Amino acid sequence: MRISVGKLRGLQQISDDTGRFTMIAMDQRGSLQKMLHPENPKAATYEEMEAVKLGVTEALAPHASGYLLDPEYGVASVVNRFVLPGRTGLLVALEQSGYEKKGNWRLTTLLDGWSVEKVKRLGASAAKLLIFFNPDAPREIVDHQVNVVQSVADECRRLDLTFVCEPMSYPIDETEEAFAHHKADTVIRTAEALSPLGIDVLKAEFPGDAKVTNPDELRKNCERLSRATKVPWVVLSAGADFNVFRGLVELACRGGASGFLAGRAIWKDAFREKTLPAQMEYMRTQGVKNFQALADLAHQYARPWWDFYGGKERLRDHFEGWYVKY
Amino acid sequence: MRISVGKLRGLQQISDDTGRFTMIAMDQRGSLQKMLHPENPKAATYEEMEAVKLGVTEALAPHASGYLLDPEYGVASVVNRFVLPGRTGLLVALEQSGYEKKGNWRLTTLLDGWSVEKVKRLGASAAKLLIFFNPDAPREIVDHQVNVVQSVADECRRLDLTFVCEPMSYPIDETEEAFAHHKADTVIRTAEALSPLGIDVLKAEFPGDAKVTNPDELRKNCERLSRATKVPWVVLSAGADFNVFRGLVELACRGGASGFLAGRAIWKDAFREKTLPAQMEYMRTQGVKNFQALADLAHQYARPWWDFYGGKERLRDHFEGWYVKY
Repeated sequence: MRISVGKLRGLQQISDDTGRFTMIAMDQRGSLQKMLHPENPKAATYEEMEAVKLGVTEALAPHASGYLLDPEYGVASVVNRFVLPGRTGLLVALEQSGYEKKGNWRLTTLLDGWSVEKVKRLGASAAKLLIFFNPDAPREIVDHQVNVVQSVADECRRLDLTFVCEPMSYPIDETEEAFAHHKADTVIRTAEALSPLGIDVLKAEFPGDAKVTNPDELRKNCERLSRATKVPWVVLSAGADFNVFRGLVELACRGGASGFLAGRAIWKDAFREKTLPAQMEYMRTQGVKNFQALADLAHQYARPWWDFYGGKERLRDHFEGWYVKY
Repeated sequence: MRISVGKLRGLQQISDDTGRFTMIAMDQRGSLQKMLHPENPKAATYEEMEAVKLGVTEALAPHASGYLLDPEYGVASVVNRFVLPGRTGLLVALEQSGYEKKGNWRLTTLLDGWSVEKVKRLGASAAKLLIFFNPDAPREIVDHQVNVVQSVADECRRLDLTFVCEPMSYPIDETEEAFAHHKADTVIRTAEALSPLGIDVLKAEFPGDAKVTNPDELRKNCERLSRATKVPWVVLSAGADFNVFRGLVELACRGGASGFLAGRAIWKDAFREKTLPAQMEYMRTQGVKNFQALADLAHQYARPWWDFYGGKERLRDHFEGWYVKY
C-alpha cells in the first residue's frame, strides 16, 4: 500500500497521535438555517450563520482531531478570527448544500465558484464531498454521481490532498421503515461502489437502524462494512440524538471504524436555547462533554486508521531522490 | 493589513496559540554532513543522514510550534515514519544547500527538481528560502538574489503559501572582526531590502555580534531591526553555542522578535557523542531542555506575531461571498 506524502500528512493532521479520527462537522448550511429558524429557514442571515459557526468552533474545535467547515459561512471567518487552532486539522466541504432533483432521484452539485484547488490553496488538510447515493437508482443517476466522485478524486490526487467522501442514502418509493430494514445493505453496497474510486476516508452512515435491528446484528453490519470498504471509515451522526448516536459510535468502533465525524448529535441540543450566549454556554459545557464521551469511545474501541492497512510500517515508501519525481 | 486565508492559516500552524514562533530547524545538509564526518563530509550516507533526521525529529518536533526540514533527506522520511506530529507546523526548504560562487560573491540556487508547488502539494504550512545577501555586493549580484526572493514570493502568493525568508550575510575583503562591527547594519539593511518583497516571516541573523558589542547596544539593534522589517521576524542560531544563543534569544525577543527558528544551537552538542543511540539520548534529554529554555524566553518576552500588525482584529478580512473571488 502506498499513500503519497501529501495525503499521508493530511491523514496525520485530521487524526490524533493514536490514529483515531475524532472529528466535528460544522459545515451545515440548509440544516443549520432550519435549526435557527424552523418556520422560515431563509430568514437566517449571513451574520447569524457566521456567529454560530464562530461560537461553536471556538468552543469545540480545540478538542477535535479534525474540524469540518463550509466555504460560505465558516472557513474564512474562523481563520480570520483565530478561533480554529492551527493544530486542529481543517476539512472543507466541496458540494452545494442540498441536491438537485431529477424525478425523485438526487444529484449532487459542486458549489459554484468553489473547487478542490481552492480548498488546497487555503491550507486545508482534506476536502470533503457529500454525495447522495442510491445504488438502485437508474444507470444515468448512478453514473452521474460516480463521475462527480471520480472527478474530485482525480483533482485530490493531482493536488495530493486527502479526500473524505460522504455518501448519503435516501429511500425511493418505499416507507421509511421498509428502507430501515435494508439500510445496511445500501450503505455497504455504496461503500463497495465508491470507496475504490480514489478516496482516502469514507464518512459512512451507520449501517443499519437501531429501531428495527438488534445491537449484535448492527455490530455485524459494521464488520461487513469494514470488509467492504477499501479505505478506513468513520461514522457520521446525521442529526441523531446524542444518546442514540453514542451507542452507534461504540458499535461502529467495535466493528472496525476508525472514529467519527459528527456534528449535530454533539451540538444540536444547544439550539433549544433561544439566545446565542445561552447556546454558546451549552457548547462550552455539555457540547464539550458530548464530544469527549465520543472521543473516549473512539480511543477505547476504534481501529487506528493505519491498522486498516496492516500498520504504519506497511505505508513506508520513500527513497533517495524521491523529491525529484514527486 | 490583509493576510490571505491560506497564509494566515500557515502562520497559525507554525506558531503557537499565543502567537510566538518556537520553531526548530532540521534542514541542514552540508553542515550536518560536516558534523557527522568532520574530516570527510561526503562520507555521510543517505541512510546515515536520514537516521539522524528521524531521531532528532522524533525527540524534538512534538515540542516545537513549527519544524523545518529539507526535501532530500528529511521531509518524506519523517512523514512516512510518523515521527512528525500532525499538529506541528511543517516548513520545507527550497534552496540547494550551499551556494554558487561568482568571484567572491555568493548566488543562491533553488534545489533542482524541487519547487514551491511541491512544497504546497505535500501539505507543508510554509516554504523557507535561505538567501545569501550582502547589500554592498555589485548590482548584478544583488539583483540576482532579489529576483530569486521575488520569484519565490510570487509563487507563494499564487499558491497562498506562507513564505519564510532567511537572508544570510557574509564578509567580503575584510576580517571577521571588521565584519562583526557592522554586522547589525548589514542585517538591518538586508531586512529593508528583502522584507517588502512579499515574504511573511523574516528569519534573521542576530543583528550584531556579542564579541564586540555590549548587550544594551545589541538590544537597540534588535529594536532597529523590528522597525526596519515589514513583517514579523524570528532569530536564527547559525550554529552558535547554546549558552550564547540563549542570551541572544532573550535580547531579540525583548527587542521585538516574535520567537526563534533555531537548529544547531539546540542540538549540535549531541554530536559530541559517537553513536546514534547516545546522540538520540542527548536529544531526548538535554536537547528538549535546551529547546524548552528558549521557548520559555519566547513566551516571556517575544512579541506575538499579530501584534506586529497591531493585533488580531486588524487582520480581519472576510465577507459574504469571499469564496467565489478567492
